[in-house]
Amino acid sequence: MKRALYPGRFQPFHKGHLHAVEYILKEFDELIICVMAAQHNFTLENPFTAGERIWMIRSACKKFLDRIIVIPISNIENNSPWLHNLKSFVPPFEVLFSNHPLVKILAEKEGIEVRPIPFLKREEYVGEKIREMMLKKGGWKELLPKDVVEMIEKIKGVERVRRIKEKDVI
Amino acid sequence: MKRALYPGRFQPFHKGHLHAVEYILKEFDELIICVMAAQHNFTLENPFTAGERIWMIRSACKKFLDRIIVIPISNIENNSPWLHNLKSFVPPFEVLFSNHPLVKILAEKEGIEVRPIPFLKREEYVGEKIREMMLKKGGWKELLPKDVVEMIEKIKGVERVRRIKEKDVI
Amino acid sequence: MKRALYPGRFQPFHKGHLHAVEYILKEFDELIICVMAAQHNFTLENPFTAGERIWMIRSACKKFLDRIIVIPISNIENNSPWLHNLKSFVPPFEVLFSNHPLVKILAEKEGIEVRPIPFLKREEYVGEKIREMMLKKGGWKELLPKDVVEMIEKIKGVERVRRIKEKDVI
Amino acid sequence: MKRALYPGRFQPFHKGHLHAVEYILKEFDELIICVMAAQHNFTLENPFTAGERIWMIRSACKKFLDRIIVIPISNIENNSPWLHNLKSFVPPFEVLFSNHPLVKILAEKEGIEVRPIPFLKREEYVGEKIREMMLKKGGWKELLPKDVVEMIEKIKGVERVRRIKEKDVI
Amino acid sequence: MKRALYPGRFQPFHKGHLHAVEYILKEFDELIICVMAAQHNFTLENPFTAGERIWMIRSACKKFLDRIIVIPISNIENNSPWLHNLKSFVPPFEVLFSNHPLVKILAEKEGIEVRPIPFLKREEYVGEKIREMMLKKGGWKELLPKDVVEMIEKIKGVERVRRIKEKDVI
Amino acid sequence: MKRALYPGRFQPFHKGHLHAVEYILKEFDELIICVMAAQHNFTLENPFTAGERIWMIRSACKKFLDRIIVIPISNIENNSPWLHNLKSFVPPFEVLFSNHPLVKILAEKEGIEVRPIPFLKREEYVGEKIREMMLKKGGWKELLPKDVVEMIEKIKGVERVRRIKEKDVI
Repeated sequence: MKRALYPGRFQPFHKGHLHAVEYILKEFDELIICVMAAQHNFTLENPFTAGERIWMIRSACKKFLDRIIVIPISNIENNSPWLHNLKSFVPPFEVLFSNHPLVKILAEKEGIEVRPIPFLKREEYVGEKIREMMLKKGGWKELLPKDVVEMIEKIKGVERVRRIKEKDVI
Repeated sequence: MKRALYPGRFQPFHKGHLHAVEYILKEFDELIICVMAAQHNFTLENPFTAGERIWMIRSACKKFLDRIIVIPISNIENNSPWLHNLKSFVPPFEVLFSNHPLVKILAEKEGIEVRPIPFLKREEYVGEKIREMMLKKGGWKELLPKDVVEMIEKIKGVERVRRIKEKDVI
Repeated sequence: MKRALYPGRFQPFHKGHLHAVEYILKEFDELIICVMAAQHNFTLENPFTAGERIWMIRSACKKFLDRIIVIPISNIENNSPWLHNLKSFVPPFEVLFSNHPLVKILAEKEGIEVRPIPFLKREEYVGEKIREMMLKKGGWKELLPKDVVEMIEKIKGVERVRRIKEKDVI
Repeated sequence: MKRALYPGRFQPFHKGHLHAVEYILKEFDELIICVMAAQHNFTLENPFTAGERIWMIRSACKKFLDRIIVIPISNIENNSPWLHNLKSFVPPFEVLFSNHPLVKILAEKEGIEVRPIPFLKREEYVGEKIREMMLKKGGWKELLPKDVVEMIEKIKGVERVRRIKEKDVI
Repeated sequence: MKRALYPGRFQPFHKGHLHAVEYILKEFDELIICVMAAQHNFTLENPFTAGERIWMIRSACKKFLDRIIVIPISNIENNSPWLHNLKSFVPPFEVLFSNHPLVKILAEKEGIEVRPIPFLKREEYVGEKIREMMLKKGGWKELLPKDVVEMIEKIKGVERVRRIKEKDVI
Repeated sequence: MKRALYPGRFQPFHKGHLHAVEYILKEFDELIICVMAAQHNFTLENPFTAGERIWMIRSACKKFLDRIIVIPISNIENNSPWLHNLKSFVPPFEVLFSNHPLVKILAEKEGIEVRPIPFLKREEYVGEKIREMMLKKGGWKELLPKDVVEMIEKIKGVERVRRIKEKDVI
């Protein structure tokens, strides 16, 4: 049994993320997907709850639900023991996939192998851009797996992002 | 017994806030005033402690002290259960008064009625502007209830705001 | 304006507490009643939420609602700065009333005057005993102010205490 | 899609737990298994980490890995908003399965349907007893699914429980 | 430069602790003494603040103040990353000295060498017994380094322990 | 025994800091150096862990290791009791040295004497500038004590600062 780990915020889970999951599952039996910043939600940077992000991921990954392990991880203030805190919430794994510099530094200093993620259309599939498209005209639907689009519409996610953005009038 | 709830940071409690309290008390028997971000103080955005803000509110509301319930509420990281966390610290209420978009979203998703606050001179009575006026020439005194002005002078509040603003020379 | 402070858990607020409040208000203009362990509820030792305890206190103190300031205070782990943490959530006060040894030590080391509370029927009016009476036959109603009894019946408080006590069958 | 939720500490995941999961999956499409007290580990009451408990559950539930969603949930101090805090970390669900009195009270007050779990051999399949058997002669292996036994042996779980129990000699 | 680490609660720092420090400093250039449970104080189990415990240790170790590094470490709930959390607050070290079973398990799983402490009069020099002696007649002074006794008398430490023990009369 | 306290973040500990320590030790027997924001590390503003900062300080202060007491202090959200929280982690002191406006306000309101630090080359010896120099060409080595430079090179500190700065490509 070979297991890998892939951390991300998935705000929202887009086609680039799905591509990464499929790529890793070609080589590994199981993939632990860590939903980071799990305690944050209903903000512009983190509009969706961890539960909603887990729901998105499962909607998009129906073909290999038995091979993914989706775990919410709340941020802690002290970065240095980040990897060991995370490890206490997940089954054992061999390789960590990430392009995030801080994740790479923190994992490498503990001797964990970190591999890069060969992202698809890296300038397009970007969470921040997708959240901005939700605020404006649109185009965001093409960047997400179809099932994620449906799920976001069910929870009125775009309306949520727009209302959070509204200027407080107090 | 009809009770309403009105959350705010009240940094400081100004005439717009007092107007809102008087407006709500026309219809409701009691008003719970939640002093939000209660754990924050001695910063530019939150110069006054929760205790000082409670003191301000009671100074300005002497005529109906028996009908207001002033409760400090510390912020939590997880926004989603915000309303249920708050509910555990206050007596029951029927209506929540707020113009804050996030408050409205979080309350509406739990089926709580949210009503807008018909603020007086909305462009003037703004906490942020008043704190800026404290840093500069002045004019802030006209925007606060007289008793709040006296109380701020007693604690040397303006000097505090200015000193917090000073550039650290280390 | 002379203000005193009286901290307690008030699980529930009984006639001994009410007697103490009336005693202090004979000498002081205002009394800050701190509802301690405010974040604890739905346990055997702390069955009622802070909001419910505030509600009890206001029900029992209808005659002097304008002179009491009821503030929930969550416990912190570090006892030593207990008083200074508390002070940031309440208006200024001159005297602290308590029979609690730890409260006395922590207040005295900061130079705050602590006075004892001349409790009424000290062996009867005890929160722990009242909670035990709720679990068994009864007799608890005579020990609480009439309005607190009504309020506890409205929220089915006795049923709550009994259910929390039930042995988990998992 | 009908989803249920089943919270537990699973220290360790035993045959009674497996029976409950199978029972619920007869009626529901998916089951969210919440690993409670997720932040606690390496203690007598909670010897295994959340990650190890997730690993146990997946080992025992190989036949329906695509239908279970295993989520670690850290305890919070404030019980009252327990359900709403939990909800922010899981996909939506219709029914909560639990025999735990506190869980039932907290869920019922929010209008969530709670159903009992028809446990198998309720006096035998008890986490606390199994942990005690691990400390003594044995017999614990018959009470756990075979794959969980193997996994506990791999991580030397029994040795861990015994060493935690050792009297500190400082 | 060879550095060792020695964690303990030091409630209070007694002759057995001093003996351990002297023993370790025979082989190592520097010793990091971690004052554990640093956030706890003014309780029966942890009567002294971290600052007071640091003061005790420095009073007793005057001969090698340049070779000890005394660091307060607050407890965290999640035991598993205990060592990595601790490491972020101390300079690097080679060997950890402890007789505490949990400390040994947590350090060994990370590949850190743990060595036992050859305690002097292990049945006598025990923090818990010394705190009990403080409550009763005495005899505690012989078990502590002379400078620690003086320091405890200066802060009226025995009176503190006794007052914490007093039954609350509320 | 006269003791002073000097709080700072020391990211990194530079010649200005060393000058301040030497200045204070001319008058005081012992100096408590508080490493503030101790829980923060591996960020652009706080690249070094508290343990690394303690290591830096001891490397630079070899001549008076017996007279400095270096204590990590984690930030708390509530500023008002900042000084009393800090006091519980350090031995008693008489004077606090700081040029930081907030530190001065918080200490003065508790009646603690605060004295300014006569910094050397105040426009050069600035943590923020030194961290920026680490990101670019250099020149930072001249601003740090020689032993601190060696220690930063040993832990590859400059590479760390640069990698944290890298744009995340996810």
